[in-house]
Amino acid sequence: MSQERVTATYLVETPYTLERAAATIAGEQSTGTFTSVPGETDELKARFGANVEHIEEIGEVDEPSLPGAKPPAGHNGKYRQGRVTVSFPLHNFGPSIPNLLSAVAGNLYELQELSGLRLLDLELPDAFAARYPGPKFGIEGTRKLTGVYDRPILGTIVKPSIGLSTEQLSELVEKLARAGMDFIKDDELNANPPFAPLEQKVKAVMEAIERAADATGKKLMYAFNITGDIDELRRNHDIVVGAGGTSVMVSILSVGLSGLAYLNSFSEVPIHGHRNQWGMLTRSPLLGIEFTAYQKLCRLAGADHLHVNGLNSKFYESNESVLRSIEACTTPLLGGYNTLPVVSSMQWAGTAPATYEATRSVDVMHLAGGGMLAHPDGPAAGFESMKLGWEAAVQGIPLEAYAAQHPALRRAIEKYGRG
Amino acid sequence: MSQERVTATYLVETPYTLERAAATIAGEQSTGTFTSVPGETDELKARFGANVEHIEEIGEVDEPSLPGAKPPAGHNGKYRQGRVTVSFPLHNFGPSIPNLLSAVAGNLYELQELSGLRLLDLELPDAFAARYPGPKFGIEGTRKLTGVYDRPILGTIVKPSIGLSTEQLSELVEKLARAGMDFIKDDELNANPPFAPLEQKVKAVMEAIERAADATGKKLMYAFNITGDIDELRRNHDIVVGAGGTSVMVSILSVGLSGLAYLNSFSEVPIHGHRNQWGMLTRSPLLGIEFTAYQKLCRLAGADHLHVNGLNSKFYESNESVLRSIEACTTPLLGGYNTLPVVSSMQWAGTAPATYEATRSVDVMHLAGGGMLAHPDGPAAGFESMKLGWEAAVQGIPLEAYAAQHPALRRAIEKYGRG
Repeated sequence: MSQERVTATYLVETPYTLERAAATIAGEQSTGTFTSVPGETDELKARFGANVEHIEEIGEVDEPSLPGAKPPAGHNGKYRQGRVTVSFPLHNFGPSIPNLLSAVAGNLYELQELSGLRLLDLELPDAFAARYPGPKFGIEGTRKLTGVYDRPILGTIVKPSIGLSTEQLSELVEKLARAGMDFIKDDELNANPPFAPLEQKVKAVMEAIERAADATGKKLMYAFNITGDIDELRRNHDIVVGAGGTSVMVSILSVGLSGLAYLNSFSEVPIHGHRNQWGMLTRSPLLGIEFTAYQKLCRLAGADHLHVNGLNSKFYESNESVLRSIEACTTPLLGGYNTLPVVSSMQWAGTAPATYEATRSVDVMHLAGGGMLAHPDGPAAGFESMKLGWEAAVQGIPLEAYAAQHPALRRAIEKYGRG
Repeated sequence: MSQERVTATYLVETPYTLERAAATIAGEQSTGTFTSVPGETDELKARFGANVEHIEEIGEVDEPSLPGAKPPAGHNGKYRQGRVTVSFPLHNFGPSIPNLLSAVAGNLYELQELSGLRLLDLELPDAFAARYPGPKFGIEGTRKLTGVYDRPILGTIVKPSIGLSTEQLSELVEKLARAGMDFIKDDELNANPPFAPLEQKVKAVMEAIERAADATGKKLMYAFNITGDIDELRRNHDIVVGAGGTSVMVSILSVGLSGLAYLNSFSEVPIHGHRNQWGMLTRSPLLGIEFTAYQKLCRLAGADHLHVNGLNSKFYESNESVLRSIEACTTPLLGGYNTLPVVSSMQWAGTAPATYEATRSVDVMHLAGGGMLAHPDGPAAGFESMKLGWEAAVQGIPLEAYAAQHPALRRAIEKYGRG
């Protein structure tokens, strides 16, 4: 029997000792039950038990982070926090994302021995790479399909999010494609609505993209939101590919990691992974999952592009956290699974320098909605301003200085830079 | 265009006014963007906008429940809490669970205008019933397959959770089936592990069940954990049905609501829905989803049985919350979708009276692991003690009094009732 193990690191808070909490986690997620039962032998525990590998104390707090923890008799009122690493025999579940989740998360979040639990990281053995091929396109594949090298892939989101007719949408896309834009994505709210069915939308939008490509020589990548039930994913994917589309988008938490892996089993174009609903799993600091762990599962399941929010966005997330996510996505994983981080939300040319300064890389997709489309001189100038913002960033030229020679950037700063 | 709407009720906490927070929620999840863009007309907003239907103030707190909210200038340091009801035009997304999630949850959990957001309830139009057939078996179908009427369906969970060989497992199952038990489920940790592949497990267990059925005249229902990737669900289901099995189990959060709906599109036996990982979505009081809302989605997607924890369990959840979940599961939904609530965790005969007192119903599946298998006189006595516990409950006889005449119950109280 293989000795390969999966390692999970948790942030733990408990009214018990960290040792006791760690043992509870390991027992609950492997051979344990609340009262000994026949068959629970020492040999079985040795072969199938989860092991506590490491415990690192962080400190104590006076109030539990989450409700419902039941302290032991004589509790001193303190809740201990620490990092706990537990390893699980791979043979308990095999290289299966769904069953991995039941093992490393399972019922742990509900245990009354814990007043906080957050999955911080996962280390997976190579058997997962054998089972899950990972993203097929990633950074290089997306560059090849868009023809964009040596700078970020710049794009926008269809706005208004919802309500444009197929005609209005295709007119907008054609205008943006003729403006030279690299990439457009559907809003996550806009998949296959009754008022503008996907099949019609794809046909009209791809015709618009091809018309623009005939004029400009450059074919824009459009990520069609094909989010839907499992039986719709292949149909929707085939509609896009059949019409010459070069990307499909799914809301990963809507279709599940299983749905994403299923899509990746037959997809012929890059999968644009949107992480809406993710806040639910991560915003409570002592609950849920850290993106460092979650992005590994998304990459295993096949996300070629993965949303990570953006600096100074409309969201609660700190810039430090966004940069950690970008770094996580670009850290090598298993057979070199390569995913393009997607920076978005309240982005414009002015967010390029800080993004570059932190990442020191142009291997990023940088999306701006209003920050490009609402440019005072129109979307083409908006796109130009984004390119200029990155040129300045990479060359280390202050934005205002670069703007003095470049009107599109200057006008962007006038519009967006006064907030 | 249809005027049907989906209604979502949220628990909201915000450093802004509730009115402002509600408008932000409605805008973010329909036609809004952070700066006005061309095409965002009043007519479009009227047809596709989400509406704030109701705002109910709860009170104020001094500390934000979640980090990252950015209060407005001149903020008085108070965070307002309230219930906010928003309605969404169905034509924005159609009757699609995955796209419904993007609309009613989406990016909301990450907004910096909010320091807390919890989806409390959902009201769905009938179009969802037309799209999703719901559970095919439910309470009546499960009673028919098990032959158990007029009392709860009583069962157990295979323990130890993981590590029994196929031979050990089938011996245990045969023993329990001969003891007359109604139902057994795999542990959620035990699906299709390399050391005991599902196909071998199903064959051996079903042979054991049939041997016992030949002897007793009663065929035990075994819920085989078929959790796996999408392409494994049909294969695993067919293995179970092909061997004469009468139930399949999935970890709903592992396969996703999409995976559950997919399984339900071809399943021929009741789907036992396990909700491990659920704590991640619900334990922070101002984040995530209330089970009242989530169970509706599980039922739409086809769960015939649905786990709800149990009274006095090993989990953090209060008894009041467990009872709310049982009530939610048994409240009529759309075309009468009927789901059997599954009560488990640290259950034994002694938890029957309080469960019955609160629910006034025997339409429940009551599972005990150690609470039945570790009975001092063996599993058959454990099963007998559970039946006796429910007889006492339904007849309104105090447990101790009933135990005086019934040794199996008395011995259960001696073992489990001293905690």
